[in-house]
Formats: sequence, C-alpha cells, structure tokens
Amino acid sequence: MYYLGIDVGGTQIKAGVVDERGAILQRAEAPTGVGCHYSAIIADMAACCQQAMRLAGIPLAQIGSLGVGIPGIADNTTGTVIFCTNLGWHDVPLRQVLQRHLPLEVWIDNDATLAGYAESVAGISKGLRSSVFLTLGTGVGGGIVIDGKPWAGAHGVGSEIGHATLVADGEPCTCGKRGCVERYCSATALLRMAQEACTMHASCAMMQQAGGDMNRLTGRLVIDLAKAGDPLASQVFLQYAHYLALTVNSVISFLDPEMIVLGGGISNAGEFLTRAVEKELPDLLMFKTQPYAKLALASLGNDAGIIGAAMIGKLTLN
Amino acid sequence: MYYLGIDVGGTQIKAGVVDERGAILQRAEAPTGVGCHYSAIIADMAACCQQAMRLAGIPLAQIGSLGVGIPGIADNTTGTVIFCTNLGWHDVPLRQVLQRHLPLEVWIDNDATLAGYAESVAGISKGLRSSVFLTLGTGVGGGIVIDGKPWAGAHGVGSEIGHATLVADGEPCTCGKRGCVERYCSATALLRMAQEACTMHASCAMMQQAGGDMNRLTGRLVIDLAKAGDPLASQVFLQYAHYLALTVNSVISFLDPEMIVLGGGISNAGEFLTRAVEKELPDLLMFKTQPYAKLALASLGNDAGIIGAAMIGKLTLN
Repeated sequence: MYYLGIDVGGTQIKAGVVDERGAILQRAEAPTGVGCHYSAIIADMAACCQQAMRLAGIPLAQIGSLGVGIPGIADNTTGTVIFCTNLGWHDVPLRQVLQRHLPLEVWIDNDATLAGYAESVAGISKGLRSSVFLTLGTGVGGGIVIDGKPWAGAHGVGSEIGHATLVADGEPCTCGKRGCVERYCSATALLRMAQEACTMHASCAMMQQAGGDMNRLTGRLVIDLAKAGDPLASQVFLQYAHYLALTVNSVISFLDPEMIVLGGGISNAGEFLTRAVEKELPDLLMFKTQPYAKLALASLGNDAGIIGAAMIGKLTLN
Repeated sequence: MYYLGIDVGGTQIKAGVVDERGAILQRAEAPTGVGCHYSAIIADMAACCQQAMRLAGIPLAQIGSLGVGIPGIADNTTGTVIFCTNLGWHDVPLRQVLQRHLPLEVWIDNDATLAGYAESVAGISKGLRSSVFLTLGTGVGGGIVIDGKPWAGAHGVGSEIGHATLVADGEPCTCGKRGCVERYCSATALLRMAQEACTMHASCAMMQQAGGDMNRLTGRLVIDLAKAGDPLASQVFLQYAHYLALTVNSVISFLDPEMIVLGGGISNAGEFLTRAVEKELPDLLMFKTQPYAKLALASLGNDAGIIGAAMIGKLTLN
C-alpha cells in the first residue's frame, strides 16, 4: 500500500507518493494560486497528486489514503481548514472538495505537527515514542509526538510552542500578545537582535558585510560571522542560543520527550547551534543528574511535510 | 476488585482502599517519620494500607494493585524513587521494600501527576481524554493527562510546568535558574508580590491585618482583602492572576487540553481566581475564535493523591 501526502505552503503545493516506511517514490509541484478561489487551489492539489501517481506508476487502487498539511489549523473531524493566513482561507471544506477529485480517505493537520511526525516515522527521531519538533524559521512552529502519535490538542490549537510565553510582557508578537517564544527564537528574532547590536555599533563586521544597510542583514550572515569568531555576531548568536536553550528547557519541563528536533532555516547552523544550546542546558534543568531529551537536527528537510501528511493517513488506517 | 493508594507527603503518610470508580472506601494515616531510615517509613506506609484494608473489610486477595505518589521523581521501570527532597530520599528501592510487606503489583509516580490523573478519573475532569492539572501551593506542580493516561515524560522529569520559564532571566528560583512559572504563580509568589507592595505602602490594609509585620501576611489574607475590594490587595491579586493567565495560555499553546484544572492552596480563592484568569485569556489566545480549554477548580482536594495512586495501578492492569 502507498500513501499520498500534500504540503501546501504560501508559494508552492508539493505532493508525493510515499511508501509504508515513509520514503517518497515520486513528487510533483505547482505554484500556490494565492488569491484564487479555494476550489482552484484544491484542484491543483489533486492534479499534483495525480501527476506524482503517474510518475510513480501507482494506480489509485494502491493508495491507502491522502493526507494534507496546512500552515494553519484544521478540524480533521469535519475535514475543514479553520484558518490558513497564507492562503486567506477560513472554514474551507478541504476534504469534501478534494474527494470530488480523488475518492480517498482524506486527513488534514497542521504542517509543523506533520513535519514533526515525519521525523519520528522516517527521520532523526525515527521509532521514538516521544519527540518535540521546533521549526526555527520566520516564526517558530511546533510538532509534538507522544506515544508514537502526533498531538495537536483537543481543539487543534496545541503544539503552538512559538506562542507560549518566554518573557512575560516582553516583545510584541504578531498574535497580539507580548513575549512569545517566537519573538526570541525565530530567524526574525535573530535578525532583530543583530539589528539592535548594529544600531549601537554602526561599523561592526555585520554592517560591513551588509553593505552598511542593516535591512540587508540575513540570519545566515550573522551565523557565518559568529562561526568565524566575530565578537559582536558571536554575542548576538549566544543571546539567541540562550533564549532557545530556555525554550528547550521549557519543552523538557512540560513534556520531557526522548528527543527535541530542531528544523527550519536557523537549524542550518547545524552543530554550531546545538552545541551552543547544549552548553547552557545542564544549568537550566530541574533534575540535574537525570537523563533528558537528546537535542538533534531535523534530517528530512523540505520533504518532512509530504512524508508527515502521507504517514498520518497510514497511522489512522492501522 | 479494589486498589490501594498511598500519598506520601513531608508530614503525613495517607493510604486508602479505593474502588473501581475512584471512590475511597476507607483510609488510614500516620505521621511521616522524616529523618528515619527509609525502611521504617516504608513499613509505616504498609501498616497504613493494612489498617485501611481492615477498616474496609477488604482482604489482600481482593486488591488489584498498590500505587504510591511521591513528591519527587520516580522510575517506575525499576520501582525506585530517584529523588524526594522532603524525605531526603535518593535512589530508594521503594517497590522492592514495599513488596516485602505487601505482595502486590506496586506502581510509583509523581504526586502532582497522580493528583491530575485522579481528577480525570473521579474529579472535575472525569472522563475527559486530555487535561492539565496545576497545583498552586508553596510551589507549582503539574499533572498532564493525554489520551486518558498520565504523561510524566520519557525520563520521568516532565509535567514540571512550575519550572518552565515565564520570565526569561527573572526572579531566582530554588531550582537554580531564573524566571520559572513557580516564581510567579505559587502561593509563595503571591506573598512576595504582596510584601513588595507593603514595602511601598507601609500603612496599607494588608499590613494592618498582618499586625504591621509583613512576615505574618498569608495568601488567604491577601485574597480576602482583594475580594473585599481593597485597592492594593486587588492590584497584587490581579498581578498574580495575570501571570497565571499567561501560564494557562502557555499550557493551551503547548498542549491544548480539554480542561485546565487548578488545585492547591491558592485555588481555594475559587471562582474569584478563575474569573480573573478567564477575563485575560481571550486576549492572549493565538486563535481567538477557536474553542479552548475550560478552566476549572479541582474537586477532590486532599483525596486526589490517594485516588490517583490507586487508579494508576488499575490503568496499568487493564
């Protein structure tokens, strides 16, 4: 049996045919028709699936189910996408419309939840019963796996670890409150910290590399300079790593998973990042002599969305 | 079938015979022999169980299992109490010693985890598949129920929500780090906030009621004055409720349970407390129009420890 997975983003629709073990056989992509009616976007999603099936030579009869990961919240009981800011969707009957194109069981879930689940099926946390996935990108997303299954909460609004509070009444967040994890642990936050440092040190290496324009700073530039030992960039990076270590410790205090997986743009810093966080962790832990979660880098990259979406259907069928 | 539950605290050992539905038939208590060798304390635990069984007229043959809740961390695989500060225990083979007195299956877990589970079996969150319990006492304890089962983590160090960070680099905590939830949401924290207010307003109603000595302030005194409308006590109470609302929102962001249950000393403030938190919540939520966890007061009081300990054995036998 094979499974279809769709990862819908703000720019691309990606679909894949996935085998029982979470390997992608074939994939197909299309630009997301942002601004189009949802029925057109959903038709494109179905077309991507059909193309991936054709490329893989797998007929519909051999497909067990179809899963869709969306950057928003979904109600899988009704098959409805409740919110999806990137697509401008609100209460869209995704399952119902998709099934007009593809007569399959359809499962919907949040994309970070599914990416975390994918890592636990076919990636770095493979086979572990519990893990927490943090995507460190424009925002901070979370995916929780407990007892081998994804947990997105009783009302579908859980595992939004980016919007737990890290600094009560701190930096204002896009969600309307202040001091969210996302404001200190996202790529956006690293850039803000770098820009704050540049304001005070206008002739620093970061400003030089950015051609004197702090709007041209990138997370990568800051991290590369920190890796090269530039003092100010290192200071900014360690400040970021401190907040991330506090967040990792909060994940341990809440859920104590076997592994905490870091994904998203900032995780490209690799062991430079995990080592900086691991250096702080022992001092933060409540039980200093107890074993605790291993910190690891995501291994599936951009494939996690397709794999997680496909595997959620397999989990539910079993 | 009946189940034995033991709740070991720093001052009292409490044991009870509990039926299938989580009702306590009979109980027995003894002072905790703090300072005695652990074998003596464990013998007292067994004696309490035997007395409760005698009072209930239930023979050993009708007892399914024995559960023990301890104020620390336990490794149920080995049956060992890893840490228990109140009792000064470290790597104590609780199961092994207890089974010399009572030949039963023995289960061990953290007391807040078990109290939360008790509420989900026989208390306010009865029958719900997911709930999070917060004890607001000297410290802040947590109990997580997911999929109808308690979750204390992969290494037994989870559901310590009191030691997640609420204010990065904030107030120093007994655990060695700064800014833990416990430093803002415990009874101890409410008192600190009240004392800070009294320092600036030496002739306030709180100081008058405390006979001019701020060390005689109690959480109850502060809450009673706030209920009566005293402006300064109200300000302190609302500051406390604000931090608690942020913590409740973080629980929703992480886990999105069906219900969040408040227990411990401060929860005696009743609806005065839940209303103050509920007033703030809508502004803090990420998804403002989605349903979210109901906030409720614990209903089992001091019995939760015994009931949870007994029911954990039933869960595992089933």
